[in-house]
Amino acid sequence: MRLIVQKYGGTSVGDAAKICNVARRLLETQRDGCRVVAVISAMAGVTDNLIKLAREVSPQPTPRELDLLLATGESAASALIAMAVNALGGRAVSLTGAEAGILTDRVHSKAKIANISPRQIHYLLNEDYIVVVAGFQGQTNEGETTTLGRGGSDLTAIALAGALNADACQIFTDVDGVFTCDPRLIGDAKKIDEISYDELLEMAGAGSKVMQSRAVEFAKKFSVPFEVRSSLHDAAGTLAKEETANMEDVVVRGVSIDRKQAKLTVDDVCDEPGIAARIFSTISEANIVVDMIVQSVSEYGTTDLSFTIHENDLDLAKKLLTPIVAELRAAQLIAKSGVAKLSVVGIGMRSHSGVAAKFFDCLGRGGINIQLISTSEIKIAVVINEAEADQAARLAHEAFGLARLGPVVTAI
Amino acid sequence: MRLIVQKYGGTSVGDAAKICNVARRLLETQRDGCRVVAVISAMAGVTDNLIKLAREVSPQPTPRELDLLLATGESAASALIAMAVNALGGRAVSLTGAEAGILTDRVHSKAKIANISPRQIHYLLNEDYIVVVAGFQGQTNEGETTTLGRGGSDLTAIALAGALNADACQIFTDVDGVFTCDPRLIGDAKKIDEISYDELLEMAGAGSKVMQSRAVEFAKKFSVPFEVRSSLHDAAGTLAKEETANMEDVVVRGVSIDRKQAKLTVDDVCDEPGIAARIFSTISEANIVVDMIVQSVSEYGTTDLSFTIHENDLDLAKKLLTPIVAELRAAQLIAKSGVAKLSVVGIGMRSHSGVAAKFFDCLGRGGINIQLISTSEIKIAVVINEAEADQAARLAHEAFGLARLGPVVTAI
Repeated sequence: MRLIVQKYGGTSVGDAAKICNVARRLLETQRDGCRVVAVISAMAGVTDNLIKLAREVSPQPTPRELDLLLATGESAASALIAMAVNALGGRAVSLTGAEAGILTDRVHSKAKIANISPRQIHYLLNEDYIVVVAGFQGQTNEGETTTLGRGGSDLTAIALAGALNADACQIFTDVDGVFTCDPRLIGDAKKIDEISYDELLEMAGAGSKVMQSRAVEFAKKFSVPFEVRSSLHDAAGTLAKEETANMEDVVVRGVSIDRKQAKLTVDDVCDEPGIAARIFSTISEANIVVDMIVQSVSEYGTTDLSFTIHENDLDLAKKLLTPIVAELRAAQLIAKSGVAKLSVVGIGMRSHSGVAAKFFDCLGRGGINIQLISTSEIKIAVVINEAEADQAARLAHEAFGLARLGPVVTAI
Repeated sequence: MRLIVQKYGGTSVGDAAKICNVARRLLETQRDGCRVVAVISAMAGVTDNLIKLAREVSPQPTPRELDLLLATGESAASALIAMAVNALGGRAVSLTGAEAGILTDRVHSKAKIANISPRQIHYLLNEDYIVVVAGFQGQTNEGETTTLGRGGSDLTAIALAGALNADACQIFTDVDGVFTCDPRLIGDAKKIDEISYDELLEMAGAGSKVMQSRAVEFAKKFSVPFEVRSSLHDAAGTLAKEETANMEDVVVRGVSIDRKQAKLTVDDVCDEPGIAARIFSTISEANIVVDMIVQSVSEYGTTDLSFTIHENDLDLAKKLLTPIVAELRAAQLIAKSGVAKLSVVGIGMRSHSGVAAKFFDCLGRGGINIQLISTSEIKIAVVINEAEADQAARLAHEAFGLARLGPVVTAI
């Protein structure tokens, strides 16, 4: 019998009616002849409320207690799902992460899964139960509750699918799948049928927040294919899997925008070992996440070092770096907010040349100035003015033939 | 060093500010040189919300899942308390019922405590932690989460105080203690300084819902004295303990009212074995709680059987009993709503005669008609019209000298 892991996010279980819907879907899947494991997130809003309460009672909530607190959200939703299945005449049992055998390391609030012992799940599946597992949580060897970081229910689902050797892993969400670009922005953006783990990772890292990146990395590492699909209807979504030869026929899989970015440039600084470390250790100690880092070619012994961060962190970063810039005797610190990152992603790039040229060309024709460029093997990212981001995305989407009529194999 | 168990109810932890207050109180107790175990209820409203959700997804929620669901409320509140203590510079750890070593039987939603293994609590206390235990919950031998019934956090606190051999057990609530009568009704009702377990049980059973009855029974069985006191200020409350000789000096400890009662009489029914069982098994199968049962002296082979239930259950009870009354060939079923039960309670009654006479006399002088009478060793309860309940309580309170100037040793 097929074994399916289905993950439902917070909006999919947001109220009693939606919980009953999910229960119905689980029962249908079982009646279609599958053994079913459901992974459930906390009801929409619950986690935010708990975090708000925690912040009200403590400026820096104890990580152990915060994990215990947040884990209650997923446990409650899972119990409700199991009740709803039983009310519809099915048989379901809910399990906490610990009961499901999810063992993690001891890093509270962003624990890594160390091992999964799905003995209890197997036992319940053999007894024909639908097994409902609270997402986002696990337990250390010592029995302490841990959580896997925001969006960790995706990771729970993929890790369980791997450990159970499931035939399918379906991530249900409130979007229809992964799109060639944000469909709210580009009307004819197309749902992608198949995507490689690497492409999804680059798109997730570039603002298309369909999935938790760690979950995709885990899926890649253990070769767990999964489908991102809508909980609102029955249409197929986007299948993420290892890349296949024909995936390369499509040069660019999608276009992503990261808004509200800020750019910092340490201008004309001595090109000596340790300079970058001095700057970025200061930034990371303040828990500021750095995205792109670009260092220009060194001439005359000095260099420019630019990087992007979230706009909200800009004031703090400027404050932290101003004394360092003086100490390093750099010419100046140039800060610029109101920028965005635009990325084109696709494994086809590896075997097709000219993608960068085409990308820059379409932006140039649109009169859009490129302020920074950074590339990986399967991604080209540029920093541009945020005001021009939508237009730029449209131009790139069109240039690479991503519209609903496509994807055409673009001739470069 | 003294060991104190403090229990805080839902209203005492109702929001972030109140949680911080409780944390401060726990720290003060520790700084006074005590080892502290806190037992915490779910934040006010949380349990009701969860029950509402459960009812929305299932007409009869699976007991196992309902227990898992409800237990999250206490776990969340406990984690918040521990965070708040830590934020104030203390050291606290929260534990679920299971982690605290509370082992129960397998009866979901009203589990009985089978055993307590407070190894982990002792360990943490020795490490100078304030130990915060989620009330209301335990775990079966098989590791299933159970709950102890509504108000079960009282039971958790008293059972822990017993198992830890605590020097004191304090039940913090939003009232100042146990009163001679409801102070909202009788302005000069007096806080009772000391009360025996039995008196408190009879008063709890008679509408003074300060404590869960099972918790008081447990305290009596294992001789765990406890104090009911306010979380809003520092005044002493009411100490419940085994009765002492001088307790008998006070004939009547208090007066209780149970409103919204209904009275049912099966009139002129054959006085044969099995009749009462036939009636009450039908009632109890419908989960209707019966309070007083009075059967009048049997004459000419027939008898009258009267009992009281909550007004809300009256329609259902009438519907269930009408065919049975016909089947038993009783003359009729007399139903009456709008009645109340008034009780006077005190262990002094045992050694003082004339209490009943005095009680009935004061009601008679007030023109209040008594519809049913039921007595225990330390309680006399009467059913009267609900409209006259307040006046009757005032008359009894005065007749037994319970006002703030007293309690006087009433001469009967």
